Amino acid sequence: MSQRTLEFWYDFASTYSYLSAMRIEADAARSGVAVSWRPFLLGPIFAAQGWSTSPFNLYPAKGRNMIRDLERICDDRGLAFHTPHPFPQNSLLAARVATVGVAEGFVADFTRAVFGAEFADRQPISDRSVLIAILDRLGLDSARILELAQTQPTKDRLRAATEEAISIGIFGAPTFRAGDGELFWGDDRLDRAIKWATGL
Amino acid sequence: MSQRTLEFWYDFASTYSYLSAMRIEADAARSGVAVSWRPFLLGPIFAAQGWSTSPFNLYPAKGRNMIRDLERICDDRGLAFHTPHPFPQNSLLAARVATVGVAEGFVADFTRAVFGAEFADRQPISDRSVLIAILDRLGLDSARILELAQTQPTKDRLRAATEEAISIGIFGAPTFRAGDGELFWGDDRLDRAIKWATGL
Repeated sequence: MSQRTLEFWYDFASTYSYLSAMRIEADAARSGVAVSWRPFLLGPIFAAQGWSTSPFNLYPAKGRNMIRDLERICDDRGLAFHTPHPFPQNSLLAARVATVGVAEGFVADFTRAVFGAEFADRQPISDRSVLIAILDRLGLDSARILELAQTQPTKDRLRAATEEAISIGIFGAPTFRAGDGELFWGDDRLDRAIKWATGL
Repeated sequence: MSQRTLEFWYDFASTYSYLSAMRIEADAARSGVAVSWRPFLLGPIFAAQGWSTSPFNLYPAKGRNMIRDLERICDDRGLAFHTPHPFPQNSLLAARVATVGVAEGFVADFTRAVFGAEFADRQPISDRSVLIAILDRLGLDSARILELAQTQPTKDRLRAATEEAISIGIFGAPTFRAGDGELFWGDDRLDRAIKWATGL
């Protein structure tokens, strides 16, 4: 019997992706669903929509609501939440490391650690030293991985992931994609996405 | 003992406002919370953000997701859902009638009937005859109400409601506002908003 899989598409700069990253693996496992971690970059998608930065910056009332909403939800879930400065964080290097992590099997632990550093511990995730410390704490060879993250094949794989995201209709993060292609946008839809994947 | 109240800010053109309109009164009542129905217009708010139409039209991938999301949710809740043509519908006249309904006490029934006509029965809600038929079915004096809806005082009250929405930080619909000013955006947040109102 093949196990059901749910793709989890996320950007490290995305606040609501933080919410999902911290719970998706445990929640999906309870339903017998495996998670396929799919780091990508929202920046090119936003740029194609004519946005120079996060919509939470472009539309300040929406941004204020997002922060308050995150505070309430994180309070319920026992998660810390602080708005990073600057917001959004530059997620490029972290996404490249995560792309290596997909190939090497450390993507889930690395992703949770980066989101925690960013939104709980107020660390700048564009800073190499922050990512190195995370990899070291995970017992990984940080020097080798950082170097690999910045090679052309890794850059190309991340670019291909972002192009795949666009091609399957992704416009924001987090997005969940079931095996039949059904898309679910937003942490609010995670339970529904897992249930959908279970029923396939 | 004063009853807790939750303001429900909505635009008749808004798909997610439909979801909330059909359940808010019963859900709030179960928690001992009264609903204050606050029709307003999203159009001026979108225009101020530089949008000429709904973001679901401006960003087609987002629009496709919204329709599929509504289909799934309405299926769960036993609600019909069809995308109106054109989308979004012009909600001005319906909002003016609802503004009369706030003053005269028929706003809740009228609002549910308009949303049902629009999203379940595929009727054009900008059409006077559609609104007249709804008022008639509610046993109301449709001729008098339609006339009153188009007087300057009613127009001014609706404009004031929209200005109030902007001033309290509303940027989309549905939005729920508790007695202490706490804002909750989106049908996804209705349960949380009711709970918040209960605890005040």
